[in-house]
Amino acid sequence: MSKPKFVFFFGGAEATVTSKDILGGKGAGLMEMTKIGLPVPAGFTIGIPACEEYYKNSRKLPKPIVEEVKANLDRLEKQVGKKLGDPKDPLLVSVRSGAARSMPGMLETILNLGLNDKSVEGLAAKTGNPRFAYDSYRRFIQMYSTTAMGLSKEPMEEMLGDMKKKLGAKSDTDLKADDLKKLCEEFKAFYKSKKKAAFPQDPLEQLWGAIDAVFNSWEADKSVTYRRVEKITDLKGTAVNIVQMVFGNKGDNSGTGVCFTRDPNSGENVFYGDCLINAQGEDVVAGIRTPLKLIELEKKVPTAYKQLCQVRKTLEKNFKEMQDLEFTIEDGKLYMLQCRTGKRLPAAAFKIAVDMVEEGLITKADAIARITPEQVEGVFYPIIDVAAVGSAKLRELKIAQGIDAVPGSAAGKLIFNAADAEVETKKGTKVILIRRETSPEDVGGMFAAQGILTATGGKTSHAAVVARGWGKCCIVGCEALDIDANAKTVKVGGKVLKQGDEVTINGTTGEIFLGALPLKKPEQTKEFKTLLGWCDEIRRLKVYTNADTPRDAVKAIELGAEGIGLVRTEHMFFKDFKVPANSEKRQLAIQEMIIADDVEARKKALAKLLPFQRGDFKGIFEAMDDKPVTIRLIDPPLHEFTPKDDAGVQKLSKVTGMSPEHIRLRCDQLHESNPMIGHRGCRLCITYPEILDMQVTAIIEAAVECEKSGIKVHPEIEIPVTIDRKEIKILADQIRAVADPIIKKAGSKVHYLVGTMIETPRAALLADEIAEVTEFFSFGTNDLTQLTMGLSRDDAGRFLPDYVLPEKEGGKAIFASDPFVSLDQAGVGQLLKLAIAKGRATRKNLKIAICGEHGGEARSVKFCHTIGMDAVSCSPFRVPIARLAAAQAVIEEKAAAKAARATVAKKTAEKKPTRATAKAPAKKAPAKKAPAKK
Amino acid sequence: MSKPKFVFFFGGAEATVTSKDILGGKGAGLMEMTKIGLPVPAGFTIGIPACEEYYKNSRKLPKPIVEEVKANLDRLEKQVGKKLGDPKDPLLVSVRSGAARSMPGMLETILNLGLNDKSVEGLAAKTGNPRFAYDSYRRFIQMYSTTAMGLSKEPMEEMLGDMKKKLGAKSDTDLKADDLKKLCEEFKAFYKSKKKAAFPQDPLEQLWGAIDAVFNSWEADKSVTYRRVEKITDLKGTAVNIVQMVFGNKGDNSGTGVCFTRDPNSGENVFYGDCLINAQGEDVVAGIRTPLKLIELEKKVPTAYKQLCQVRKTLEKNFKEMQDLEFTIEDGKLYMLQCRTGKRLPAAAFKIAVDMVEEGLITKADAIARITPEQVEGVFYPIIDVAAVGSAKLRELKIAQGIDAVPGSAAGKLIFNAADAEVETKKGTKVILIRRETSPEDVGGMFAAQGILTATGGKTSHAAVVARGWGKCCIVGCEALDIDANAKTVKVGGKVLKQGDEVTINGTTGEIFLGALPLKKPEQTKEFKTLLGWCDEIRRLKVYTNADTPRDAVKAIELGAEGIGLVRTEHMFFKDFKVPANSEKRQLAIQEMIIADDVEARKKALAKLLPFQRGDFKGIFEAMDDKPVTIRLIDPPLHEFTPKDDAGVQKLSKVTGMSPEHIRLRCDQLHESNPMIGHRGCRLCITYPEILDMQVTAIIEAAVECEKSGIKVHPEIEIPVTIDRKEIKILADQIRAVADPIIKKAGSKVHYLVGTMIETPRAALLADEIAEVTEFFSFGTNDLTQLTMGLSRDDAGRFLPDYVLPEKEGGKAIFASDPFVSLDQAGVGQLLKLAIAKGRATRKNLKIAICGEHGGEARSVKFCHTIGMDAVSCSPFRVPIARLAAAQAVIEEKAAAKAARATVAKKTAEKKPTRATAKAPAKKAPAKKAPAKK
Repeated sequence: MSKPKFVFFFGGAEATVTSKDILGGKGAGLMEMTKIGLPVPAGFTIGIPACEEYYKNSRKLPKPIVEEVKANLDRLEKQVGKKLGDPKDPLLVSVRSGAARSMPGMLETILNLGLNDKSVEGLAAKTGNPRFAYDSYRRFIQMYSTTAMGLSKEPMEEMLGDMKKKLGAKSDTDLKADDLKKLCEEFKAFYKSKKKAAFPQDPLEQLWGAIDAVFNSWEADKSVTYRRVEKITDLKGTAVNIVQMVFGNKGDNSGTGVCFTRDPNSGENVFYGDCLINAQGEDVVAGIRTPLKLIELEKKVPTAYKQLCQVRKTLEKNFKEMQDLEFTIEDGKLYMLQCRTGKRLPAAAFKIAVDMVEEGLITKADAIARITPEQVEGVFYPIIDVAAVGSAKLRELKIAQGIDAVPGSAAGKLIFNAADAEVETKKGTKVILIRRETSPEDVGGMFAAQGILTATGGKTSHAAVVARGWGKCCIVGCEALDIDANAKTVKVGGKVLKQGDEVTINGTTGEIFLGALPLKKPEQTKEFKTLLGWCDEIRRLKVYTNADTPRDAVKAIELGAEGIGLVRTEHMFFKDFKVPANSEKRQLAIQEMIIADDVEARKKALAKLLPFQRGDFKGIFEAMDDKPVTIRLIDPPLHEFTPKDDAGVQKLSKVTGMSPEHIRLRCDQLHESNPMIGHRGCRLCITYPEILDMQVTAIIEAAVECEKSGIKVHPEIEIPVTIDRKEIKILADQIRAVADPIIKKAGSKVHYLVGTMIETPRAALLADEIAEVTEFFSFGTNDLTQLTMGLSRDDAGRFLPDYVLPEKEGGKAIFASDPFVSLDQAGVGQLLKLAIAKGRATRKNLKIAICGEHGGEARSVKFCHTIGMDAVSCSPFRVPIARLAAAQAVIEEKAAAKAARATVAKKTAEKKPTRATAKAPAKKAPAKKAPAKK
Repeated sequence: MSKPKFVFFFGGAEATVTSKDILGGKGAGLMEMTKIGLPVPAGFTIGIPACEEYYKNSRKLPKPIVEEVKANLDRLEKQVGKKLGDPKDPLLVSVRSGAARSMPGMLETILNLGLNDKSVEGLAAKTGNPRFAYDSYRRFIQMYSTTAMGLSKEPMEEMLGDMKKKLGAKSDTDLKADDLKKLCEEFKAFYKSKKKAAFPQDPLEQLWGAIDAVFNSWEADKSVTYRRVEKITDLKGTAVNIVQMVFGNKGDNSGTGVCFTRDPNSGENVFYGDCLINAQGEDVVAGIRTPLKLIELEKKVPTAYKQLCQVRKTLEKNFKEMQDLEFTIEDGKLYMLQCRTGKRLPAAAFKIAVDMVEEGLITKADAIARITPEQVEGVFYPIIDVAAVGSAKLRELKIAQGIDAVPGSAAGKLIFNAADAEVETKKGTKVILIRRETSPEDVGGMFAAQGILTATGGKTSHAAVVARGWGKCCIVGCEALDIDANAKTVKVGGKVLKQGDEVTINGTTGEIFLGALPLKKPEQTKEFKTLLGWCDEIRRLKVYTNADTPRDAVKAIELGAEGIGLVRTEHMFFKDFKVPANSEKRQLAIQEMIIADDVEARKKALAKLLPFQRGDFKGIFEAMDDKPVTIRLIDPPLHEFTPKDDAGVQKLSKVTGMSPEHIRLRCDQLHESNPMIGHRGCRLCITYPEILDMQVTAIIEAAVECEKSGIKVHPEIEIPVTIDRKEIKILADQIRAVADPIIKKAGSKVHYLVGTMIETPRAALLADEIAEVTEFFSFGTNDLTQLTMGLSRDDAGRFLPDYVLPEKEGGKAIFASDPFVSLDQAGVGQLLKLAIAKGRATRKNLKIAICGEHGGEARSVKFCHTIGMDAVSCSPFRVPIARLAAAQAVIEEKAAAKAARATVAKKTAEKKPTRATAKAPAKKAPAKKAPAKK
């Protein structure tokens, strides 16, 4: 019962506790290093559960924990043979935060604690270095006053500055011991004037203040924001690490450094880091002096360096991961101050993981498990060359912040409409298309542009979805932009930018910069390909892509797609990717079809579209040779395609011979109050069966032609927005009635499937009936999310932040994440499970996939695996993420199964002795009888 | 095996078959009358299954049925002692259609079949009346040529006319036998010229042609349309009745008549009908001669009249229903030609049902079961006094046809905007408000108007829903109206009507007429109240009303509402029903709230609204003393309340001091792509909690004040558009935090509930979680239908007809009815069942109701009963329908249970002998052993 529950001494009996969830990352590292025999300064960790108790107890450390801390402090003092505040030879400690995962710069730290007016003299005497002692003291006073006592930083920094100015000192190091002593006095006086009390001299009082400061920093605004941005929801608090101070600034036999066990930029297996001789750790971080390469240490302090190299090996062997280390050498003696998994650039992550597999350190499954979706994404996108620009300059150039819709960066001239964007691009100009919002008419310009920037919309707005499909850098919802599309100007932050002005956008962060900044090109490394190849070996979920052009299809295959899960045929209506000159013809033909007054006129217009669509499909079949291609029939409401301006109306009038008034009337008639739930999807083909006829003819004729030229085709025709068995039966029958004669006539053997999107709740609820007449399901979770939640993704930006943001930021934290980004497993997920069960009950071999935006989001992909889908489909650039997540899902499934088996085994094992005990008396019984016989 | 399967002889061995589903209505009536000994001409019925066979066999009667018909014809000839086509004394037959339910005028009939050039002479000789014989023959040729052979009617009618002109004959009866004989020749020549064959002389050929004609009429366009309009989906075809002709035109001892066993207009228990002496049945129907009152028959043919009165009694005793009869007297002998349940006016339906209960003929349950929802509805609404106008005149005055949104009729001056409608009404003018579509701003004018007419929208558009709530006559979606609201004119069918022109609208039929036609006032009869009282005795489902004003509440109580299931608080925002002068103040306050730039400004505006809302709620609590009142917090998106024109903006600018530009900007910012799934419902209170604070304060303060003045209050506060447990928990907590202190401070004992609308699929799917924090559910099936089906009710008019219309009318017949009118049980119904099960699993005593439009639709109400809801809520005028349907649901449930018990009993009875048989060998076994013992 006397065993400490909240405080853990390094290397003590409690060293069995190594969980980061209790000790925090830093504490766990120190504990682990102590355990495996590495040189770590003495100390202990006040665990994260103490932080929880602290908050439960109204930000006050409960008595029993106070007692535990005192007992551990005693032990620390005994172990190092020094006492906190000892006027002769004081023990100094650092008080550092440490959550279960790194939150760099968010939580507080206080160093040199234990110094006061007396002990500082002892330190000076003991080290023979009064300057060092008073410098340490003044730093402590500064840190403690600001961090623990809430004073602002500037006044004391100014006092230091004033003194330097007065003495003509260039740097801090020019100040003498007496100067620093005087500064300490000034600081203390300042402290007293502000806090109406003397600076605390009692080291224990200092300690409690520091511990509170660390705990309080957990709920500071910046920490809360950081956790939201990083989507950290599982952390419960911070630990506090109280560790004996060691000093790297005791002379040329001392030093300090920060290093990585491998190169975090390239991933190469070389010892990588910086060090400073005769310096403290903060000097390395602050960048006041130019640090040396780690290798220099070999010459300066060879023994310690050799020892450090040994530590590197030991740590990698122990953690099986690249480590980020902090060390200090005090008088030639090496102390390890921190070790943690090192951050790395995306490409490096792949190299390290693959290398470690080849070195036999980890398994392929381990390698896959430790890659994050963000690292996969990061491999692809161009980034601003910060080194070339300089980070200060970069800050200065930033003019606005939008929503990071598609990562990567792009630089170019601002262009205000799609047509100009196409024209400028043809001239060789790099352009950034800026629009209030985008529509299908803009697709050509969007495609031409280097990057896309909109003033409205969220991560699933038209702009974001289309750009993501191409992996094209995109920032949306940048409300600071006040765009005048006619004048071709944008007001932003007091500036007015006009067409042709250069900007750079960073879609990874949502930042917008003035000027065309230098960018670095991405590349897919050998190790990236190797690791994703391993993913393919173990995943069960197939990964398809959403692609509307041969170009997208080729890109997707390169990235590992096994087929196309969604071709949005309407994306072909506005843009001829092969012969750009034909784009307008297509556009006019579709518009002519829409405004047609009768079936005959509509058929005439459709006949013009047919060869274009057939050509598109041929291109895609060629690109996808022998891979399945799921082609969705027309989906969006027709008004999305109508001419948006007078020029468009005039052109259409010329082509059709209809009066502009009549055209405008027909367009007006298409207006809908709620187009998302209006006349769209297969409802269009119910009303205008001739559209289906044209599209199916184009698909099947293309398939037949490709087959003749030796290409293997697997078309799957998909019907969108289904709500009823009879509805889809009518359309499926019609598809077959159009397709079969074409195939028969050509003497072809093309085999095609007919299936449906499941994107309305009704379709999910009636999936058993719908499966009777369809051969595959593809979940359109964008729409299914909208309908299940009654949430328009185009409008949700108005209030969804209230649902997703934490309370500290004015939100209500109702959802953990945007349901359009990560699938709503509790709600929408229920419908998916239901539809899968019902669908398969009717048709055992029903092919089931997802093709909403969620199909490329790792958490959602794992969910799709878990509920038994056959495939996911996502935009080309998300294919590798899906491959990774699908593999991780298998790994996690196995781990869960193993854990479950272990639990069963444990229970069985626990039961066994019980049974033995139960049997024991039975065995004893005859023994008891025996004496009776005597 | 020789027993006929498809053809049934009246009174024959097969008289056990009496089902209308097999014999059709007419056949069943004749069979039944024969069976109970009434005088019926000899004949037989070719059953409805034969019609199905006919169509299965490509519109050809299969051989075995042909044989059966021949056998029955033999039997008929034998029974009457005459032969079809006999040149001396021919048997003539009628060939009549007859479906399981009456489809008046839709299906075909051929009379006098069996006449040819020879038998007509025989008939002339036998009757001594050549004129009668040739008149019969020319009628037969006409009927047969047009009905069976597809010739058009006009030419032969013209030939008849020409002959009359030539001979100076005023009416048909002025034509002599020879004239008619000549006419027969002309007809036959005409027939031959058209059909390139002589008019068939073989009576059997005539018979097969006539049978085909009747069967073919089943799928004729007009029949198909009729069935769709009448929502007849369960009929499988028509029977064919072949009956010996009897003649009422054989002299003054002959006659014919149509009568009802009770007065179908008043329902009074008097013999009611018309007859003609010396005439055939068709003459009564055609109205060529003015018929006599039935009572006259007593003087003319007393024996037959006495017999007829006996028939009346026998039939009512037998059928326990008011019957509609056709009879003919031939030479003093009465023949019953038809009996069927008589159609009646709505009020009469109630009187007859209640009288029959009092007469001991039927039970209360029988009475309830036979009332239709349409009869209930029909009791309420004013109708055009057709008698006063004249039906021909009425047809002439019709100018357009819209969608029948709310039944009843209204007449008044056309007014083009809501404000004018209010002004004119104050002057005492009766107005019809005509709008392209209506919005909440129009509510005042809508309320003032006699009737509402819109050019767009469907049965659940704003106009329809609001009008239905008031039981106010309304026609929507009349696309023929080309409205110019500024010019205050409407173009329709070539005419231009301007403001002030008089029209009459019939919301029951969707017809619009020129001029203010005379209307008849409805009244609720004693019997109506008695019967609905009986409904209340047996129903389990409570019936609440949707009401937004004390006036509606009072009306609803009169109509039997037990509480308010839905108060739409936002309906109070635009209209002060007590002090109309305050309406503008309310409107400006809500607009001020909406455009407020910050919380303080919003709170200021809300403070202005508070007293209005409190006053509204007080009025409602007073009206609903001791009855529950469910009050829904603000639901629609805010942009619905913004000023719609410049004058509105200017007014608001004056009140708020905001510039018109800024107001317009704020209004623009509220624009949404899909407002139905946008920022609405409780999302508004998540974003603007101060709106909830105001509304809850108003509700609870009103409740507390009412309670003090002795009124019992049961407020239930309802949160709309919920999607998540946490969301509703936040709001429920907030409601209690506002309400409880008010109650406590007042020392009041007001008890209130907090509940939610279930109107998103997600809320239904997570009902178990949501029930943790709510005390009642109310299904908002309007929205739930929209979301489950992904179907915007405002836009669905564009394509829903394609889903609901039958193929013959260019539709696909995907749904049996509009899912916004009758609940989609297969899809939405699944979610309701799921949510009820999940909700009750969490909270056993959860109150569950429905408050969508479906709550007043009979089929949907029955479904709500079946799935275990506690209550339905509907607009006041639909309360009686809901009471009726709820009672019918209990009756149907009992009948189903009884039928199930009977099936079990039958199975048990069937099993018993089996068991006995099974046991038999066992019993025999010892018997077998016995001899062995011998």
